[in-house]
Amino acid sequence: MEITSLNNPLVKDIVKLQHRKKNTNKILLEGYKVIYEAFASGIDIDCVFVTSEKAEEYDFVSDKIILTTRAVLKKISTTETAPEAVGVGIKRQFDKDILKTSQRVLLLENIKDPGNLGTILRTAAAFNVDAIILYGGDSVDLYNPKTIRSSVGNLWKIPVFEVREITELNSLFENFTRIATLPRSKNYLKDYRVKFPCLVMFGSEAEGLSEELVDFSTDDLKIEMSEDVESLNLSVSCAVVLYKLFL
Amino acid sequence: MEITSLNNPLVKDIVKLQHRKKNTNKILLEGYKVIYEAFASGIDIDCVFVTSEKAEEYDFVSDKIILTTRAVLKKISTTETAPEAVGVGIKRQFDKDILKTSQRVLLLENIKDPGNLGTILRTAAAFNVDAIILYGGDSVDLYNPKTIRSSVGNLWKIPVFEVREITELNSLFENFTRIATLPRSKNYLKDYRVKFPCLVMFGSEAEGLSEELVDFSTDDLKIEMSEDVESLNLSVSCAVVLYKLFL
Repeated sequence: MEITSLNNPLVKDIVKLQHRKKNTNKILLEGYKVIYEAFASGIDIDCVFVTSEKAEEYDFVSDKIILTTRAVLKKISTTETAPEAVGVGIKRQFDKDILKTSQRVLLLENIKDPGNLGTILRTAAAFNVDAIILYGGDSVDLYNPKTIRSSVGNLWKIPVFEVREITELNSLFENFTRIATLPRSKNYLKDYRVKFPCLVMFGSEAEGLSEELVDFSTDDLKIEMSEDVESLNLSVSCAVVLYKLFL
Repeated sequence: MEITSLNNPLVKDIVKLQHRKKNTNKILLEGYKVIYEAFASGIDIDCVFVTSEKAEEYDFVSDKIILTTRAVLKKISTTETAPEAVGVGIKRQFDKDILKTSQRVLLLENIKDPGNLGTILRTAAAFNVDAIILYGGDSVDLYNPKTIRSSVGNLWKIPVFEVREITELNSLFENFTRIATLPRSKNYLKDYRVKFPCLVMFGSEAEGLSEELVDFSTDDLKIEMSEDVESLNLSVSCAVVLYKLFL
């Protein structure tokens, strides 16, 4: 198959994915590395736009290839320099039942920065997190191209669920230790002994954890640090806490 | 003083700072927060360009103010949306003698990402690092606007030195424990007991630590993590190691 027109309906559909709403099951995949990692992790690949010179490197999805031009690639991609290929993947659905047997769950409330989210996914995969909850209904899109890139292939390795209601959190994590990470906590991370199953919760970059989630917590803690410094970057805080609690 | 011409020589000089070479002692400071934090940390402020409506918020540098237009601010700043003020600070010089009494020193070899460097400066300030060495002669500029922003005011709190030669490192850190962080190490961070004074060394995002620095090290370690994950983000690795060793 070959598509070279910038006005082709499929091209227009893919452009929409650049600012995707959450009500699509399609994911924009930009560049060889991202496409290959998604494929290797079992993500269904819908199609891959690639120029004829590069097409043979995409043998692993040979029946999905659409030959195209640099101009089309530039139009459908989000990066400043167009990648050699742009693919479309299909979201994987996970069943929340897996939370029943999870020991280590990370909750992020209304996280806003796509790079932070990707970095946290990478760290979470490294530090044995079983599942991630995006809470609050106002998080950055999980499949934002920057999130995919900064997760370096690890986005596909962990089940991620969106939860909007505290009532649902209550029923999912009733028997969990529920840790609020809070700058005003009196408990230092270094002294904390965790009991599993455990849900550890982080607030948004600007707002911190909501009072709703503080009320929902069973425990709270903070990272000990110099009094000169107001706070840490969110992905850094996550990494330190996950390392200490989960490894 | 008032400057409204885009062709004013001082405006042109400041534009040059956007892609600054290391042979200037001037630093571009963009926006209220960055200018104020630098001032509050004792950085000499050379001048502050600001519109007349916002000028009174810059009372703390009232004798340095240059009234200007939005067009000039747009020209001299690096962000997509022009900040309300752009200042110029003067680099502070630190004396390497302070390394003689330092206990906790962090070395970054040819670090490339300005956001990573800023985040690491913030973490280092939080976790009691006494000084930072940028090694190898090919690091991102310490005063890159993105580095300044992502350090959130912490760039000004730690002495940072550039070192290019292994011979100089040898003489500065002869009596230090010199730790190489290496994916191929057989020693896990969790089991490691540190002896001070200590220099902990991280390689660049893409290359890792050079063999020259591995040879220079007295100890090596790696962060224990899932076998599924190839590596962590550099600022995340730094945070976990600094937390475990220095707190």
